[in-house]
Amino acid sequence: MDPEDVRRAGQGRNIKLVGLVHGETSTSVLTQIEPFRRVADELGALLVVDTVASLVGSPVDVDRERIDICFSGTQKAISAPPGMAPITVNARVEEVIRARKTKVASWYFDLTPIMTYWGKDRTYHHTPPIPLVFGLREALRIVLEEGLKASWERHRQNQLALIAGIQALGLELFVANPAERMTTVTGIVPPAGVDEHRVRRQLLDEFSVEIGGGIGTLKGKLWRVGLMGCSSQKRYVLLFLAALEKALTDQNFRLSPGAGVTAVSRYYSQTEAVPVAQQK
Amino acid sequence: MDPEDVRRAGQGRNIKLVGLVHGETSTSVLTQIEPFRRVADELGALLVVDTVASLVGSPVDVDRERIDICFSGTQKAISAPPGMAPITVNARVEEVIRARKTKVASWYFDLTPIMTYWGKDRTYHHTPPIPLVFGLREALRIVLEEGLKASWERHRQNQLALIAGIQALGLELFVANPAERMTTVTGIVPPAGVDEHRVRRQLLDEFSVEIGGGIGTLKGKLWRVGLMGCSSQKRYVLLFLAALEKALTDQNFRLSPGAGVTAVSRYYSQTEAVPVAQQK
Repeated sequence: MDPEDVRRAGQGRNIKLVGLVHGETSTSVLTQIEPFRRVADELGALLVVDTVASLVGSPVDVDRERIDICFSGTQKAISAPPGMAPITVNARVEEVIRARKTKVASWYFDLTPIMTYWGKDRTYHHTPPIPLVFGLREALRIVLEEGLKASWERHRQNQLALIAGIQALGLELFVANPAERMTTVTGIVPPAGVDEHRVRRQLLDEFSVEIGGGIGTLKGKLWRVGLMGCSSQKRYVLLFLAALEKALTDQNFRLSPGAGVTAVSRYYSQTEAVPVAQQK
Repeated sequence: MDPEDVRRAGQGRNIKLVGLVHGETSTSVLTQIEPFRRVADELGALLVVDTVASLVGSPVDVDRERIDICFSGTQKAISAPPGMAPITVNARVEEVIRARKTKVASWYFDLTPIMTYWGKDRTYHHTPPIPLVFGLREALRIVLEEGLKASWERHRQNQLALIAGIQALGLELFVANPAERMTTVTGIVPPAGVDEHRVRRQLLDEFSVEIGGGIGTLKGKLWRVGLMGCSSQKRYVLLFLAALEKALTDQNFRLSPGAGVTAVSRYYSQTEAVPVAQQK
């Protein structure tokens, strides 16, 4: 649903929240938050944003974008172990939760007792997954060491390099509009005549490179290449392009030999000549 | 509620499940499963047993005791990192779940999609907490290396040694009936005239020994000493008794100096003379 659909569907009804996935890994689409915020305002609804696959990889500004509930994962661009879901809610949400007349169906997902845990009372609530918490702390320290803006820029540059290589091989991107592309996951359309599953299998078996396939209705129609957090590195972009070229060539796909890695190398050489701050 | 209460409360009503906490850490009480199984049978209900604090420390036999749903934690006697809850359900429960007419309120707690994940289809469900899974695997390997029966016996012996020491200091146990005592957590009644919170504080600050206090209505009325998994060791029993004696003496509690550790040592020396298999 685009924001206009949400507006229409919500008109004249008591809509409590509008939710969106910021970066949708299953399609590689990045959704702009602002238009949904506007619709949520018009409907008097809370805005919930899933930033699992985008946080740290793309700009997310919870306060400026007035996201009421924002949650994420630790195992994507933050590059900490999986097993936790960071969440932040604002004062308006706290009020809504405290004013509920019905109990939350799941104790596990009821924030009210957790509020007295993270609040002044420090009331015991659950045994935290201690090693994961330490892992997250270290991962966030590394994120801050690089700087959020530098991290966003790194994700963008490595994806642009990837795209240069993909296009040089004559392949098509799944998302046409650059503004709607996630920086952490890039969707590629498997070319006609190529057994896409065999390509993924070969990448994994021969080069230990794992890329995702399409899910549900997109099965067989999409490759999803993740470059997130500590895996968003030049070396992985180069390796992937070189390995993909071999896999495609093994299936007799016609391409210009070496075109992918050459385009990637050229992209890096050109952008490095310009200080990051001046790159547009 | 004892089983009789459950029977009375359930009579003439459509009771779907009977649940109990096998080892209740907040009181140190171990509940016998069998009487609840009988009541559940009479009521035609499923039996759900929480073995978070008992599994590996006390005998639990899911099949023989006909527990329909059994869940546990990883961070107690299994001694793996916290963050997971092992669960097992039998075929009868699977049928009940699949026959539900209303949807489970929480996607997170809905077992049906997880069944297709752990089943033949291997349908993607969630990103597992990988480091925790590896940690659990290693912890279970250690449990099997010792053997379950040997582990139960170790927990029992170390608790009996602890009890010998506690009683030699003139202190009282919280649970009078030995059959109702958990092996992993031992409840002790703080003696009159002693500031129980100060004792716990001192144990922690001076000896890095942390014991629990009472929760809710038991606040100030209970010490809870955990000896579970890799912490159920002679050295910790001795250290705890020696440290407790100092803390009590510092508050002018009258005791026979050295009585606690002496009783513990004597207990171990005597039981070691007898092969474990012959101990009753």
